Amino acid sequence: MSSSHMSGVLAPVVTPFTPQLEPDRERFTRHCRWLLSQNCGLAVFGTNSEANSLSVDERMQLLDGLMDAGLDASRMMPGTGCSAFPDTVRLTKHAIEHGVGGVLMLPPFYYKNVSDEGVYRSFSKVIEEVGDDRLRIYLYNFPQMSAVPLGIELVARLREAFPSMVVGMKDSSGDKENLGKVMGAFPGFAMFAGSEALLLENMRVGGAGCISATANVNPKAIDALFQNWESKRADELQAAVNRVRHVVQQFTLVPALKTILSHYGSDPEWNRLRPPLVELAEDDAKRLVTELDAVGYRLESGG
Amino acid sequence: MSSSHMSGVLAPVVTPFTPQLEPDRERFTRHCRWLLSQNCGLAVFGTNSEANSLSVDERMQLLDGLMDAGLDASRMMPGTGCSAFPDTVRLTKHAIEHGVGGVLMLPPFYYKNVSDEGVYRSFSKVIEEVGDDRLRIYLYNFPQMSAVPLGIELVARLREAFPSMVVGMKDSSGDKENLGKVMGAFPGFAMFAGSEALLLENMRVGGAGCISATANVNPKAIDALFQNWESKRADELQAAVNRVRHVVQQFTLVPALKTILSHYGSDPEWNRLRPPLVELAEDDAKRLVTELDAVGYRLESGG
Repeated sequence: MSSSHMSGVLAPVVTPFTPQLEPDRERFTRHCRWLLSQNCGLAVFGTNSEANSLSVDERMQLLDGLMDAGLDASRMMPGTGCSAFPDTVRLTKHAIEHGVGGVLMLPPFYYKNVSDEGVYRSFSKVIEEVGDDRLRIYLYNFPQMSAVPLGIELVARLREAFPSMVVGMKDSSGDKENLGKVMGAFPGFAMFAGSEALLLENMRVGGAGCISATANVNPKAIDALFQNWESKRADELQAAVNRVRHVVQQFTLVPALKTILSHYGSDPEWNRLRPPLVELAEDDAKRLVTELDAVGYRLESGG
Repeated sequence: MSSSHMSGVLAPVVTPFTPQLEPDRERFTRHCRWLLSQNCGLAVFGTNSEANSLSVDERMQLLDGLMDAGLDASRMMPGTGCSAFPDTVRLTKHAIEHGVGGVLMLPPFYYKNVSDEGVYRSFSKVIEEVGDDRLRIYLYNFPQMSAVPLGIELVARLREAFPSMVVGMKDSSGDKENLGKVMGAFPGFAMFAGSEALLLENMRVGGAGCISATANVNPKAIDALFQNWESKRADELQAAVNRVRHVVQQFTLVPALKTILSHYGSDPEWNRLRPPLVELAEDDAKRLVTELDAVGYRLESGG
């Protein structure tokens, strides 16, 4: 992995499925290639990738497919954090062997009300078992889904123990103040906002970019904001991406993204989800498209 | 799997680990053999088994070990419900091939606020992929941990679609009224209370028994209550198991059970947990033992 931090806009890449609900490797690779062409990095196997509905082998096969297709591993930040550390170790080793830019690591997420000590041991056990100096971990803070918040004290302890490896964080808590708080505590930390709605805010406190579901369907506009965050147009660019974001986030996120790729990409094959997620109801899908049309949304040939 | 329901007392068998935190197959098998000798069935790979901290392969190897040791598969109800359905399918097929009495199935537990339709599809996809008439599913309702409640309507839909396969439930919600409600709706359903504190209550509404963490360390007394629930001594037997239960449940359950097996079984090797769980603090461990001594607790040579 690179010694410098990753930065910019990354998409937690949505995962297409065949009619039998097998991962659709070809369509996945095509979507990833398009995202890279929009200057959007690949946070494959995130929450919005339905990664926790994929087996370890399925994730490794999808990543192998991206490598076979010659996509740039340095722009990839695969999610590797599982409930069981042997799974996390396997995925992380595999990703490092492929030369990815970093890995996005959820804490183990089944057991609730666990102690900071337990979460610390989880990460340090994985780091020890992986045993590779090339490891670059971006901690994945998403208490609403994982039920395991990663607070400042825990991050400080991990940074102190593994300064070259615990290099950044994706903060999906939605807590605006947390971005500044973390950056204040750890200057140089590569902080990614979990939504482009907080991208400008995050850049202004020294953050590295954003990893946002909506980047799957609006990568160009979000990258324009990232590229021009110091310009006079920044607030206007933020407002533009917010208009699309505000429409999409009224709906359950993953099915909404798949509806958009199906409709605007004229590819109904996208509109399948693994249970427990389900596709949008027809009325919701229609309203999503109507409202996106109304804000002038275009996919620009992705998907 | 048997055509009749399972019943009685089962333990979600705690999983011992080596100093390297590998599953300790020999000690696990020994504990399972002891539990069977106490007439306690084996709900291996439950929440209190740290099952979600084990990989799919680790679970299969531990079950293979029980088979190699000649333990009775008809008394086993392995937990097989994972986040990703291919994992659930693999574990379930493997368990059926070994002739287990049934499987205890969690719904997928990463995604939150999912719909009943999505949970229904999860179970039906697994049933379809397993494709084996011998399958007997005990639904695992544990909303505090899985964050996915299994309500009456969902159970009714599953029972209607798969009457010979969806045969029972473990209810760990702790909601006493739910036991009667479910049994009222589905006479003949094999309902297991998630704690022996509700065993008598559950038997009185037509339930099948209990699957309780504490059965790992108090199987004989809990089985005595099960065997004699219609006798005049029932309330007294219930009170006896409650005394032990009330002490144990003041502490985090899995580390408390491992402390008990370590201390009363004179086997400190038991006192290891996989992160994110951690062993009891020394003061807590001492208090647990003191309070158990005070209620006259004895392990009777288990562990």
